[in-house]
Amino acid sequence: MSLSKHIKWNEAGLVAAIAQDWETGEVLMMAWMNPEALDLTLREQRAIYYSRSRQALWRKGEESGNVQQLRELRVDCDGDTVLLKVEQVGGIACHTGRRSCFYRLADNNGELVVTDEVIRDPADMYGIKR
Amino acid sequence: MSLSKHIKWNEAGLVAAIAQDWETGEVLMMAWMNPEALDLTLREQRAIYYSRSRQALWRKGEESGNVQQLRELRVDCDGDTVLLKVEQVGGIACHTGRRSCFYRLADNNGELVVTDEVIRDPADMYGIKR
Repeated sequence: MSLSKHIKWNEAGLVAAIAQDWETGEVLMMAWMNPEALDLTLREQRAIYYSRSRQALWRKGEESGNVQQLRELRVDCDGDTVLLKVEQVGGIACHTGRRSCFYRLADNNGELVVTDEVIRDPADMYGIKR
Repeated sequence: MSLSKHIKWNEAGLVAAIAQDWETGEVLMMAWMNPEALDLTLREQRAIYYSRSRQALWRKGEESGNVQQLRELRVDCDGDTVLLKVEQVGGIACHTGRRSCFYRLADNNGELVVTDEVIRDPADMYGIKR
């Protein structure tokens, strides 16, 4: 794999990754990748990110089952962002149980309005005991 | 405008902004905003970014004419990315003269293949003398 050489890694050694539903075009989330995550994403044909909070690889869907199967990977003009077109298994990308992480719409006063419903209870999704 | 308070600004005081064509769903570009850029984007209903290289506001389209009219602004679950649904004036978001900045597709070997055509010569777009 030589995709890494086409990337302009940021000062933390990461590249921004946007995940988009390959069929509907809906933007699902934005996360980060280190070189290993990017290589594994291409090799395994599923989204693997780098968690900045956990400082570890984040195999999307490993807990929730909501894996993102890779359909297409694109790189932008200056090489500091990649676009993943994915098949979102389970139809849920967000840890809140919604399709997309962008479920809040700004109104003209700068307040946020929740527009998308919770499809699956996160407590159920992540097996949290209640 | 109080949208700023809903944003988790990064260590550089910026938030990632993804621009998406509001009609076709095509992801056009990713850039950054500071609080002023975000406020102005909402107020003027057009995309205004913060250029990290120039360290100044970047009124998208001010040179090229390829303004991005805002149709919808969304914020993600953890507040560190915004999604702008825009009407891309001129149909060109990229400084290379292409519709989208994501005009390069990665093949299975990690090499990049240009898939999108140049719609307008950048030299013409930015009035460069040749």
